[in-house]
Amino acid sequence: MESVRVAQIGCGYWGQNLIRNFWEVEGSEVVVACDPSEKALERMRRRYHGVELVTSYDAVLANPNVDAVVLATPVSTHYDFAKRAFQAGKHVLVEKPMATSSMHVIDLIETAERAGKVLMVDHTFLYTAAVRKMKSIIETGQAGELLYFDSVRINLGLVQSDTNVLWDLGPHDFSIMDYLCGQEPVSITATGVKHLHCSYENIAYVTARFDSDFIAHFHLNWLAPVKVRTTLIGGSQKMLVYDDMVISEKIKVYDRGITRNPDPANRERMLTGYRNGDVLSPNLETTEAMRLMAREFVSSIQEKRAPLSDGYSALRVVRMLEAAQHSIQQNGREVLMQPMVPRPHSVPAVAGSLV
Amino acid sequence: MESVRVAQIGCGYWGQNLIRNFWEVEGSEVVVACDPSEKALERMRRRYHGVELVTSYDAVLANPNVDAVVLATPVSTHYDFAKRAFQAGKHVLVEKPMATSSMHVIDLIETAERAGKVLMVDHTFLYTAAVRKMKSIIETGQAGELLYFDSVRINLGLVQSDTNVLWDLGPHDFSIMDYLCGQEPVSITATGVKHLHCSYENIAYVTARFDSDFIAHFHLNWLAPVKVRTTLIGGSQKMLVYDDMVISEKIKVYDRGITRNPDPANRERMLTGYRNGDVLSPNLETTEAMRLMAREFVSSIQEKRAPLSDGYSALRVVRMLEAAQHSIQQNGREVLMQPMVPRPHSVPAVAGSLV
Amino acid sequence: MESVRVAQIGCGYWGQNLIRNFWEVEGSEVVVACDPSEKALERMRRRYHGVELVTSYDAVLANPNVDAVVLATPVSTHYDFAKRAFQAGKHVLVEKPMATSSMHVIDLIETAERAGKVLMVDHTFLYTAAVRKMKSIIETGQAGELLYFDSVRINLGLVQSDTNVLWDLGPHDFSIMDYLCGQEPVSITATGVKHLHCSYENIAYVTARFDSDFIAHFHLNWLAPVKVRTTLIGGSQKMLVYDDMVISEKIKVYDRGITRNPDPANRERMLTGYRNGDVLSPNLETTEAMRLMAREFVSSIQEKRAPLSDGYSALRVVRMLEAAQHSIQQNGREVLMQPMVPRPHSVPAVAGSLV
Amino acid sequence: MESVRVAQIGCGYWGQNLIRNFWEVEGSEVVVACDPSEKALERMRRRYHGVELVTSYDAVLANPNVDAVVLATPVSTHYDFAKRAFQAGKHVLVEKPMATSSMHVIDLIETAERAGKVLMVDHTFLYTAAVRKMKSIIETGQAGELLYFDSVRINLGLVQSDTNVLWDLGPHDFSIMDYLCGQEPVSITATGVKHLHCSYENIAYVTARFDSDFIAHFHLNWLAPVKVRTTLIGGSQKMLVYDDMVISEKIKVYDRGITRNPDPANRERMLTGYRNGDVLSPNLETTEAMRLMAREFVSSIQEKRAPLSDGYSALRVVRMLEAAQHSIQQNGREVLMQPMVPRPHSVPAVAGSLV
Repeated sequence: MESVRVAQIGCGYWGQNLIRNFWEVEGSEVVVACDPSEKALERMRRRYHGVELVTSYDAVLANPNVDAVVLATPVSTHYDFAKRAFQAGKHVLVEKPMATSSMHVIDLIETAERAGKVLMVDHTFLYTAAVRKMKSIIETGQAGELLYFDSVRINLGLVQSDTNVLWDLGPHDFSIMDYLCGQEPVSITATGVKHLHCSYENIAYVTARFDSDFIAHFHLNWLAPVKVRTTLIGGSQKMLVYDDMVISEKIKVYDRGITRNPDPANRERMLTGYRNGDVLSPNLETTEAMRLMAREFVSSIQEKRAPLSDGYSALRVVRMLEAAQHSIQQNGREVLMQPMVPRPHSVPAVAGSLV
Repeated sequence: MESVRVAQIGCGYWGQNLIRNFWEVEGSEVVVACDPSEKALERMRRRYHGVELVTSYDAVLANPNVDAVVLATPVSTHYDFAKRAFQAGKHVLVEKPMATSSMHVIDLIETAERAGKVLMVDHTFLYTAAVRKMKSIIETGQAGELLYFDSVRINLGLVQSDTNVLWDLGPHDFSIMDYLCGQEPVSITATGVKHLHCSYENIAYVTARFDSDFIAHFHLNWLAPVKVRTTLIGGSQKMLVYDDMVISEKIKVYDRGITRNPDPANRERMLTGYRNGDVLSPNLETTEAMRLMAREFVSSIQEKRAPLSDGYSALRVVRMLEAAQHSIQQNGREVLMQPMVPRPHSVPAVAGSLV
Repeated sequence: MESVRVAQIGCGYWGQNLIRNFWEVEGSEVVVACDPSEKALERMRRRYHGVELVTSYDAVLANPNVDAVVLATPVSTHYDFAKRAFQAGKHVLVEKPMATSSMHVIDLIETAERAGKVLMVDHTFLYTAAVRKMKSIIETGQAGELLYFDSVRINLGLVQSDTNVLWDLGPHDFSIMDYLCGQEPVSITATGVKHLHCSYENIAYVTARFDSDFIAHFHLNWLAPVKVRTTLIGGSQKMLVYDDMVISEKIKVYDRGITRNPDPANRERMLTGYRNGDVLSPNLETTEAMRLMAREFVSSIQEKRAPLSDGYSALRVVRMLEAAQHSIQQNGREVLMQPMVPRPHSVPAVAGSLV
Repeated sequence: MESVRVAQIGCGYWGQNLIRNFWEVEGSEVVVACDPSEKALERMRRRYHGVELVTSYDAVLANPNVDAVVLATPVSTHYDFAKRAFQAGKHVLVEKPMATSSMHVIDLIETAERAGKVLMVDHTFLYTAAVRKMKSIIETGQAGELLYFDSVRINLGLVQSDTNVLWDLGPHDFSIMDYLCGQEPVSITATGVKHLHCSYENIAYVTARFDSDFIAHFHLNWLAPVKVRTTLIGGSQKMLVYDDMVISEKIKVYDRGITRNPDPANRERMLTGYRNGDVLSPNLETTEAMRLMAREFVSSIQEKRAPLSDGYSALRVVRMLEAAQHSIQQNGREVLMQPMVPRPHSVPAVAGSLV
């Protein structure tokens, strides 16, 4: 099969991770690195021999040797850069979040479909061994009916100048929840706070309600003294705990559940009455998630198919981000989300749907 | 000083803890144990020689040798039992929550004041070494301006037949927050879910907003596979982490904070830019919290003063519970809380104050 | 079945734990508490109504209503107190270690056999759910061939005035190893150190060699800043980790093992090459170990059979202690242990068996 | 200052780490990569543009553009490769352990001195922020008098075909102990076991005695189901715990110590009686240890001075390895170590010094 010739657009912190993976992954060839900073390009020159270095994105688009672009540029540029790439006949991988509005994502989906090119978003976590293992546990029904999804993603982060904690950290957990639970929320309620004279929210709490008693909740925080990345998933049969901060045993599967106190006359708090079985920590593969993600982008191009984290995955995540942002701006009022219909161009926008 | 002669009302799981502490604490004498169950009383007979055992609460109230009653009975009985105790001239310690409505708490405060008796609520956590240490760190200004309070109190609990997770677990964290942060919320938003055909909520998320950018958030869950009791308190100078599930080093004080990225043109996420200092885990005393709580009840009676966890402490907690319950019933709408004025009888009820 | 009438001898820290358990366990009746301290007896009077309180051990032995004595007295008294109890026709439970020499243990075994009475040692850990679970995993062959046993039992303890860390903490791990692994060492090597002008060793490292390539190692330390109780057991099929300091998931069973690098020409350290399977943390029962231990003493008396932790169990542990002590005194020279033959009176002493 | 032109010898797992650091560190220029495997060289070609690739070590020595060689070759080659490098006028950095015998290390020290070249060993851990922080705590006297050093370095490792666990893992902890404690042992006792038909020991326990009551103990294990890297250092004033497996708070300084029970008549185990103060986890720098190590090699060449981990550091570690190996072969007999005298050529060999 022919190699996919990739141009890395943006060679900052995350761009360097991407280029390293595309450099090593089978089936791809990094031919161009593009960044406005000469210093950033110099770093690439030292590491990646033979890669063409350019400061102009237009030069990349005009280059017939480039099959695909990998965008690790500021979020505000994603839509424009991706759109022009499709117009130039390139496949596109976009860093998360794919765009700043669902309208833009819908437009990119349609543009990609018309161009017959692959559109993929880098929801890296979907490619981790931990998330894939949880997916298989849930998909095979071992966990039973899903009851709740609770994630905490907090650390001491640099307050950023162009985005808030919701749009920075939220895509990770929203995409994990979307992938694992396979349901779209019917409403989002969110609270955000700005501290220390910051322009953007540095703490956000987001609650998603669904068309059932399933509930999802997200705690995002740039101002926490400790780094926590923990997800709890409660099922009627099994409960999962995913702790991304431990080196081994990241996933634990608890054979636990509750039973109701059958005797309402019994006033004492009983210490028994629930199922308390074994805990299993399944062995996980050790392949780097970004390697698998890069491989998926290359494969989907070669096999002319949609990638796992396609435009619709991006759309569902951006719709949640939009709704949460809207709720924050309305001081935590519930924002209803109209269901997405199959054709993306008719996906309703979120903004007008306030309760 | 004269001993305070105590009657233990309710000898179930928590009542046994209380009687054990009043039995041992200096200055108190347990003279009566009261429970409708003969079996529960039999257990007391074996352990506490000489204590009078009765099944009738009226008998306790009529007993002139009883100075004070300790109520560990179902929440629904608290108001009536406490009120009648004051009328019989007894001091009253009530298990948390003090009552099922703020109106009842206000009435008890007034009744106690008229009777000249002590009214105290068992907010046990205020008497732990960990909470007292955090109080001193905050009070002395070491933590700086408080930015947020975030608590998680989850475990696999027996779903109870007469209350929900909010009223069961919430009083712990609400009272800790009230004590440490010393501010009353201006609004409460809460979401609750009932799973597995339960009659009452088994998961609740509660957000409290204040008259500043301080925010408090509470995660309460009876359906979690793991037991977590963690509180984060972010200050502008120091951040505290309180983990009640570890045997030592329960409190950690982080000399950490953030600075904003000063250069908006710098697009890369910087890895420096925040203060990352030492972590201190202060040594904690080992006295049992319930022992101190029992001692405080006895002392406040002997010294004719208000206890630390007095009726107003109970009132502030019950007002938050009421508001959160109201918000849950309104699908997460924000419930405004009117400020409490000094005289308790004019404290406005929460129920009518929906946005 | 008739109740066993028990006398608690020694009402200090551990004695109080014992009496509490015998007070509650089915089939036993605590009739006497004996301690030279009136203050200690006063504490018992308050808690255990109807129990006869005496300061004289002779009075206990003369009391025809006492069937069994429970010795929680200083180690130096165990032998004499136990021996006289058998002569007075009582059953005997002795706190660990059973005696200060294997000769004394042998004598007690023989005396008990002649008297037809039960002799039991309080190796409490054999009655914990964790140790019993590990026993069942090893016994059923799931772990495969045992390769090593490694335990660490360290904390900040009060340096004691009449014993060293070996005799204080060693019996716990020696008895666990003896129970789980079922082999007697062929030699013991031990190192001990005295710090801070102490009269007795506060750190000891003990290595036990066996008649195979199985090895056991023990780290005992009274001068560690952290409390650690961790045991690793390596088997050819499964490996066990027992962490007694965590509240849940005390036991983990690792499906792990190694394979040798098959290609000696391959100079690079390979990152694969070993089996790395799932980790299982089995659910454990929650019954208190001392309750089961007390029950075992009562049952063995009622059923006229040897208890799980009988005199021979004590003998094997004391022989290891003696050998380790001997090795410490010889600056770490290996001390050979002659095999025990079935009849206890011909068990060889350890002391003369230096290499 | 002139750049140091470096040749990387051996491009396996560890060699790749070294070349990456010398490639990036200021003051060094990687000019040659040498490995017998064409495949390994091909990997270097891809990553390090312009580096000369050779399979012959002789070619490196003959290259006048090479100032220094970095040896990441099998241990058995270290002595010969280093000796020839000095003869060719190169500086030498050797992977740990420096050689398979102290005689060889002494010879290298002397050869380097005669040649006027730098001889350095890669004791990487001495360059970690954690070890440097502990060094400063000990050096400034905060910890008081050192009482013990206890390290555990265990994991599931591939059993290697040319060395045992002692020589593989031991140099890490021996060099840390040597650096932090600054004392040479007077004797070593060690036990090793071979399991599963391995040719070399996969578990080793090593005890070092000193000319005081300070003691050091090392647990090395390739067959453990969990990865543990923990060091305890007990001082009379402070105690340190170094846990290299946690992401933050790797070092904890405990303000703890013991006091003796002053009253020998008090038979009860007291629960007080020791000092139990705060715990401090100092902030650590985040520079990669290998970067600092590479920088130290380059600086010592440029500044014509001995590096931190010089030949004598290597010598002290290899003497301990030799003594431990000797003890293992003698079934754990104590091996006395004669003191090193200043001139290395008169350092006594260990092998003949059995008790």
